[in-house]
Amino acid sequence: MKSTAYLLATVLCASPAFADEGMWTFDNFPSAKVRAKYGVDITQAWLDHVRNNAVRLSTGCSASIVSGNALVLTNNHCVAACAQDLSSIGHDYYTHGYTALNASEERKCAGMQAEILTSISDVTPQVTAAGKGLAGDALVKARTAVTSTIEKQGCPDTALNRCQVVNLYHGGQYKLYKYRKYSDVRLILSPGVQTAFFGGDPDNFNFPRYDLDSAFVRLYENGIPVKTPDHLKWNSSPPRDGEPVFVAGNPGGTDRQLTMAQLAAQRELTLPVTALRFSELRGRLVRFSEENPENRRIAQDLLFGLENSYKVYFGRLFTLNDDAFLAAKARDEAALRGNPAAQQALAAAGTPDPWGTIAGATQQMRDLYLPYTFVERGPTGSQLFVYAKSLVRAAAERAKPSAERLPGYADSRLPLLEKQILDPVPVYRSLEQQTLEFWLSKAREYLTADDPSTKLLLGRNSPEQLSAQLAASKLGDGALRKALWNGGWAAVKASSDPMIQYLIRIDPDARRLLTAWNEKVDGPITAASEALAKARFAAFGTSVYPDATFTLRLSYGQIAGWNEKGRQVPAFTNFAGLYERATGQDPFKLDPRWVAAKGKLNPNTIFDISTTNDVIGGNSGSPLINANGEVIGAIFDGNIHSIGGDYGYDPANNRSVAVSTAAVSEALRKVYGANNIVDELERP
Amino acid sequence: MKSTAYLLATVLCASPAFADEGMWTFDNFPSAKVRAKYGVDITQAWLDHVRNNAVRLSTGCSASIVSGNALVLTNNHCVAACAQDLSSIGHDYYTHGYTALNASEERKCAGMQAEILTSISDVTPQVTAAGKGLAGDALVKARTAVTSTIEKQGCPDTALNRCQVVNLYHGGQYKLYKYRKYSDVRLILSPGVQTAFFGGDPDNFNFPRYDLDSAFVRLYENGIPVKTPDHLKWNSSPPRDGEPVFVAGNPGGTDRQLTMAQLAAQRELTLPVTALRFSELRGRLVRFSEENPENRRIAQDLLFGLENSYKVYFGRLFTLNDDAFLAAKARDEAALRGNPAAQQALAAAGTPDPWGTIAGATQQMRDLYLPYTFVERGPTGSQLFVYAKSLVRAAAERAKPSAERLPGYADSRLPLLEKQILDPVPVYRSLEQQTLEFWLSKAREYLTADDPSTKLLLGRNSPEQLSAQLAASKLGDGALRKALWNGGWAAVKASSDPMIQYLIRIDPDARRLLTAWNEKVDGPITAASEALAKARFAAFGTSVYPDATFTLRLSYGQIAGWNEKGRQVPAFTNFAGLYERATGQDPFKLDPRWVAAKGKLNPNTIFDISTTNDVIGGNSGSPLINANGEVIGAIFDGNIHSIGGDYGYDPANNRSVAVSTAAVSEALRKVYGANNIVDELERP
Repeated sequence: MKSTAYLLATVLCASPAFADEGMWTFDNFPSAKVRAKYGVDITQAWLDHVRNNAVRLSTGCSASIVSGNALVLTNNHCVAACAQDLSSIGHDYYTHGYTALNASEERKCAGMQAEILTSISDVTPQVTAAGKGLAGDALVKARTAVTSTIEKQGCPDTALNRCQVVNLYHGGQYKLYKYRKYSDVRLILSPGVQTAFFGGDPDNFNFPRYDLDSAFVRLYENGIPVKTPDHLKWNSSPPRDGEPVFVAGNPGGTDRQLTMAQLAAQRELTLPVTALRFSELRGRLVRFSEENPENRRIAQDLLFGLENSYKVYFGRLFTLNDDAFLAAKARDEAALRGNPAAQQALAAAGTPDPWGTIAGATQQMRDLYLPYTFVERGPTGSQLFVYAKSLVRAAAERAKPSAERLPGYADSRLPLLEKQILDPVPVYRSLEQQTLEFWLSKAREYLTADDPSTKLLLGRNSPEQLSAQLAASKLGDGALRKALWNGGWAAVKASSDPMIQYLIRIDPDARRLLTAWNEKVDGPITAASEALAKARFAAFGTSVYPDATFTLRLSYGQIAGWNEKGRQVPAFTNFAGLYERATGQDPFKLDPRWVAAKGKLNPNTIFDISTTNDVIGGNSGSPLINANGEVIGAIFDGNIHSIGGDYGYDPANNRSVAVSTAAVSEALRKVYGANNIVDELERP
Repeated sequence: MKSTAYLLATVLCASPAFADEGMWTFDNFPSAKVRAKYGVDITQAWLDHVRNNAVRLSTGCSASIVSGNALVLTNNHCVAACAQDLSSIGHDYYTHGYTALNASEERKCAGMQAEILTSISDVTPQVTAAGKGLAGDALVKARTAVTSTIEKQGCPDTALNRCQVVNLYHGGQYKLYKYRKYSDVRLILSPGVQTAFFGGDPDNFNFPRYDLDSAFVRLYENGIPVKTPDHLKWNSSPPRDGEPVFVAGNPGGTDRQLTMAQLAAQRELTLPVTALRFSELRGRLVRFSEENPENRRIAQDLLFGLENSYKVYFGRLFTLNDDAFLAAKARDEAALRGNPAAQQALAAAGTPDPWGTIAGATQQMRDLYLPYTFVERGPTGSQLFVYAKSLVRAAAERAKPSAERLPGYADSRLPLLEKQILDPVPVYRSLEQQTLEFWLSKAREYLTADDPSTKLLLGRNSPEQLSAQLAASKLGDGALRKALWNGGWAAVKASSDPMIQYLIRIDPDARRLLTAWNEKVDGPITAASEALAKARFAAFGTSVYPDATFTLRLSYGQIAGWNEKGRQVPAFTNFAGLYERATGQDPFKLDPRWVAAKGKLNPNTIFDISTTNDVIGGNSGSPLINANGEVIGAIFDGNIHSIGGDYGYDPANNRSVAVSTAAVSEALRKVYGANNIVDELERP
């Protein structure tokens, strides 16, 4: 539990950042500050070299190229879903890991695409012009259209490239990010969760930590590994306490620039409702998993995801209930409201009170949130629902011109969507039934039995009955999905699949809710946030960094522990600590290979590392880089205080957690006998 | 979801109550107010007659005597645990109900004791004198001792009577409540949850409602029914909209007099942590129940309790996140702080700032709450843990003089404790294992793996492993419990039962946590709350009512619906509505007897009733009484707005929900063929 002193020292990002705070874009990195504080010269060449080897994985993670044959370092938990998908009864790669012994065993990860940022260009004028004079749903639609057009023009060759218009500073800037993409990503080595997630959920977000949360994939193109001669250098010598370090990765999202009204809506509505739902679903899946080993095997990645998210939401809820933290946030908001330059900018734009507009939109949100969540967003954890919704929507949207489609269905977005729908993954009917039943049951509970949305979703069925019908869908069959994707609306409409028919039935209402959401919530907040961004630029220029957006950022900092209520937490753990912590009981049970290797391993090998870098979910797998631009670790977590980092970075306590390259090299050689990989990594 | 306008009109009870607010003690009922508003004359004779027939059930409910042979009306959900305990494989009385066809089938409810209040006397001087000059744990101990002594002296004949010192107005008054007790309470008729809880959790706390949530038990003494010639009259004629009505029962607890700091501690810590835990345990039990019919049968009462409590905590959390409600509470607190009479009283007592003292104690509470909860309070839903803890503690405490024992183990408390330990109830090992595993797993999660309390509870075991060991306890065997109860410390210490040995091992630490809690939380709050009570009396006299304490209260009001966001909700439902709402799917599936009886029942029979009475959990089963003192229904719920009633009564929206005697009589005759019961009820 977080004490009330927590985050008292927080420097909020409405003010210019100092300490090691900041998730900086590569075109606005504060090199001068870094030089002054750490004496390290971050040159343009350094930035370009790192950027060229920083990888974004479409599955929500970060990574880096660490060999000349496109060997990519990421976290085990970033490839765990892939290991789960490759598993089958009796082959639980998720738990026990996977090692490709030769090229033929390097197996494709379903839905995984690797993306490397090649250029950033400013498209703010085009985007803002497209929304001029519009509001609500019309504004959202106009922005969607112009985004679609810019992306399509920016990347004519969608086989090799992907373009994305990125909204930075909540509409303060719009930039076109162009990526070189690799759609064939293969699993090379995963140690398995028993080793990579030793300590499991109890130790998640805690430090000291003893996790080998690293894994390797390889980029392929035309059936052979991509040549990557200018990769990042792998340095497995022991890191030093206090040494300056950098993290290049894709933080998924932060809420540091939200207004007090937006934070209140999270605290009072969205966070508790989400945490409570996740909590109950977690309970169902824990019991489901205990029923038999096969249930445990098929539910484990979903359960991990739920538990991880739950811990994040729980921590955020407690941060937003911290009086001292809220007072600091309120002071920051008041300071911006009172800043003369900001006031002038707002007056000039004819938007004197964006805070009030946002507060009004959050009130509308309170009414719309539950139906929107249950009907338009749908269940947590149902692959069948995602397939059916994507197929039904894509069939309808692809009949329109690209610029008129829903977000996510523009031409620039279709290649990845198609890959995600068509790549083969196993679908488990029993698990589907449980997640669908849970969703329908919570919809009825939160909306009440008599609500029109409940009646839409359930009719006179019970959640138990309807979920069983829907889980009988055959959309787990890739050939059927392919036929429906290629067949378009005619094929979809003619399908007798129960999930497809269900989605066709509820889709008109789901779209109405989406339109209402755009009209009353998203549209007004988009417009007001742009005004706020202008006010911030007027007050602080670009000495502030934008909230995270799952796009490439660079964070600086140093290797350091912290002081936990009077006790100093060291920056490093070592292999000896792992063996001490093992109890023989899950999740503190060692992989037999580690038991066997104990005598061979150097017990003093630095295992996990605490650093001051400012990271958040999405940064998982990011390379930890030294001043020379060499990889010395992979970020895989933050400490418990880092969860509050969603709202603001606390230099005293916020720490990121990485696994060291030293540990990875030692384990690869002595535990996994993977000398070939170490040789590839350490080839000069 | 509650809108922010909710409770804007709340009249908080730091100010004198008006509207139909108030849970009044029988020695301070505002008869003049009732006469003025409703023209009804509540005489002392009326009060005595009602009090003499108002029953408190030790299982946490209220009830009333409604025949000359001690037939007692309560709710089905108040006897559901009894029906569950009487059930066995193939005999699911919980779901389908139980009807005793003759005296031999009137079966004893385990642990249930009926108590009728016979006198109230003031013991404030003795209690306050006993704590004079003391603080913290010493104050708590002195109060426990004097309470034990007063109770023992007040009720020398513990076979017939029970005495309880009741803390009213948070220490403003201490009163000795003397009860005539009946330890042999037998089940006569339960319709079963399919009928009594039609609509299940989705409809719980909602209205319109279609539940026959009524049941009958009978008081026995010396093997025969008690004679109760002066019982309340059963009136099954249709009630009238707007008619004045009264509720005599035992509201379990309210938090209307808490300070802002106490409310903040609930909002920020205890409510979310409890709701989240209940939510996950609920998920586990839902899935457990789905595994097979026997699991469903054995888990159903525990699951109902969890879901009911969850909904309450959820609603309270949202009330405490309501800005308008909090602002009203803050205004009330400021008004009392600024009241000159209150200030003088506080200055005279040498306690100028009890609010500050309480705020300080809630800060201490934030550190102690989790270890105290997990170690001292223990698991939710484990009967074995409760048995073992009671046996271990009772063995140690009974060796001391009564006044030196822990609360709950004084001589005055032992008879009921003994009954609760020795009465036979089934214990289910699979369910025990699940609740124990959950508890241990959450302890490790919330406290973290390295916390001393986690190490105390788990050692190097996993929750899965330890829970399996503990669930193997033989304490489900009543003979073993009796031997341990009678054998005292020597027998307990010598027992090889794993749960007994576990409790012996953790008890010293649990006691240390209890002492710390008393020293830092309970003691300071007790002292400061007494000072606050003096300030309130100085400002308002006894025109305010005390927070609920599961002691007898009388509420006045009228039959009335309310306006829900512009739509008028009628005060009544009828049988026709039940048949319309039935879908054939649980929990909207009719009992086959109701399907069969449809043609015989009068469809216009008034079924459930909405009234303005101020009630809360513990009031379940309370008689709804008309101006003539006749029973016209049984309270079984409140509407969704009533949940916020924990913190303040909202006259516009807060409604209690009762089942009508009209519906009960009609159903008894035409659905259950229980003419004998109706004849007994309607005998003049």
